[in-house]
Amino acid sequence: MSLPKIGITLGDPGGIGPEIILKAFTSENLLPKAHYIIFGSSIVLEKEVKRLGLNLEIPPLVEDKIDHLPRISLWEVTSSLRIIRSGAPSKPNGQASFLFLEHAHEQAKKGIIQALVTAPISKKSWEMAGIPWSGHTDYLSQIYPQAIMSFWSDKLKVALYTHHLSLKESIQGIKKDDLLGFFIRLEQDTKKFQPDGFQFLVSGLNPHAGEGGLMGAEEKDEIYPAIEQARKEGVNISGPFPPDIVFRQALNHPDKIVIALYHDQGLIPFKLVSFEQGVNLTLGLPFIRTSPDHGTAFDIAGQNKANPQSLTKAIELAYRLSPFL
Amino acid sequence: MSLPKIGITLGDPGGIGPEIILKAFTSENLLPKAHYIIFGSSIVLEKEVKRLGLNLEIPPLVEDKIDHLPRISLWEVTSSLRIIRSGAPSKPNGQASFLFLEHAHEQAKKGIIQALVTAPISKKSWEMAGIPWSGHTDYLSQIYPQAIMSFWSDKLKVALYTHHLSLKESIQGIKKDDLLGFFIRLEQDTKKFQPDGFQFLVSGLNPHAGEGGLMGAEEKDEIYPAIEQARKEGVNISGPFPPDIVFRQALNHPDKIVIALYHDQGLIPFKLVSFEQGVNLTLGLPFIRTSPDHGTAFDIAGQNKANPQSLTKAIELAYRLSPFL
Repeated sequence: MSLPKIGITLGDPGGIGPEIILKAFTSENLLPKAHYIIFGSSIVLEKEVKRLGLNLEIPPLVEDKIDHLPRISLWEVTSSLRIIRSGAPSKPNGQASFLFLEHAHEQAKKGIIQALVTAPISKKSWEMAGIPWSGHTDYLSQIYPQAIMSFWSDKLKVALYTHHLSLKESIQGIKKDDLLGFFIRLEQDTKKFQPDGFQFLVSGLNPHAGEGGLMGAEEKDEIYPAIEQARKEGVNISGPFPPDIVFRQALNHPDKIVIALYHDQGLIPFKLVSFEQGVNLTLGLPFIRTSPDHGTAFDIAGQNKANPQSLTKAIELAYRLSPFL
Repeated sequence: MSLPKIGITLGDPGGIGPEIILKAFTSENLLPKAHYIIFGSSIVLEKEVKRLGLNLEIPPLVEDKIDHLPRISLWEVTSSLRIIRSGAPSKPNGQASFLFLEHAHEQAKKGIIQALVTAPISKKSWEMAGIPWSGHTDYLSQIYPQAIMSFWSDKLKVALYTHHLSLKESIQGIKKDDLLGFFIRLEQDTKKFQPDGFQFLVSGLNPHAGEGGLMGAEEKDEIYPAIEQARKEGVNISGPFPPDIVFRQALNHPDKIVIALYHDQGLIPFKLVSFEQGVNLTLGLPFIRTSPDHGTAFDIAGQNKANPQSLTKAIELAYRLSPFL
């Protein structure tokens, strides 16, 4: 059996991405056996290797030898980046990090790599570079409209029905048919990874899940009917549960995935219990895509303080899931 | 110095209230030295003492000897309750539990007791008995409109700006002047307990606290101006912070209180980290009022399975805070 090829983008050159990638590859906790291809720039990598005082050489990838790759190689993405401004957003860093992603995605789409792990980009750098998307998931969602944002850790798994919308807009999007479509897609996307399937617990929207309509009608008008219909169609799903109880129910149950109806409903509990261990997993793509659940951390960039744990977890999850797609 | 008098209501006779009260008084973890007055019914208590096989006598309180109380005594509240239906809501249980609360509140209002600890009531039982309130805090809020619902544990402290409203109504209530009034009241209500005061962290409403207006305008139009004004008036307050980060910031910092803008924003993280240790503390009353953060647990009532920990914590907090009011 040939080893999987896993692409890793460098992320924003001014953030902690390059540092945590190099730390992940030189830490004592060995990463799984695979061919790792870093999509980035030798200028950034060499500067970072030197700064961290590492004894690590990452050979450039030779495209016609793609079937005989070393453990780790660099896919040099040509960009105009010459000087790296660290610790702050910048236009060249935005341009470069977007090109890293585009190139990596190109190879993922073609099936050259089976999984894509993305180090953090800066939304601000992208904005300065005129990139119209707010992040990786946003970019991928334009290409794959059925993409689903989910968060995985050893303690909790959460899938988000909506994400980067105002809370008001999230509420407006709670419609039976859309919910039903989401439930069914989520089941199909995750069944691949686990033959017996997962158990889905749907959170309510309102306090106490609406308490029979006393505090909000969305549960009885939209959410409950969608769950019932999904169940009829064979999905192992239940709810809506009181939001302040459902995450406790799923905690430390690896077979359970909570469906959160809006960004913070899922991310408040996830980040609280999965600190530095959380992985962002995009479902519904023709390849695996994971990332750490933190940002560029400009405030500690270039100071050798960044913790590679969440990235390591993202790489391990990408490796574990890649045979199933 | 005379000992504080702490009233404890029995709660719904069909729930776990009577069991956890008796367990709290007979456990090895001694409750603090105070005069405890149970507002309830000898029928309920005696049945429960027998069922649990306890060797405990709770003498009836003699009103003209209120200044020479034993450690624990029973304030017999006359009700029509003769037979106790356990493990389910019922009209007589609803009537009785409401009377226990009314009598206890009467003594708290008069200053006869300094603190009131309430065991769980059933909203359903109250409904069956025609009681128009949805719970203790709802009842107290009618009498004291400035009451604030907060949740305290060793790990996290949270105050709720709104509670038993639909999520949609909670959003509509996010107005600068109301927020400002809340911030100032909260500071005044809590300063009594801690001379140096607490540090208040305000959560945003929208993902990433609105990201400069990209995802919702409430932060810049209402929340931020209210925080600024409160700060000018001397309140130690900051924010709005991204909701998925602020609870992590406050975790294990006993001097920090997170202001959550709606019920589940505060209770999802609180219940996740404070399981069986959480206390509901109503602020803004002329007396201390605490309760465990769980319900009647009808499913395990009468089975000797109930855990008194959260009630014990509620009693300890009431004791600790009562000298300050």
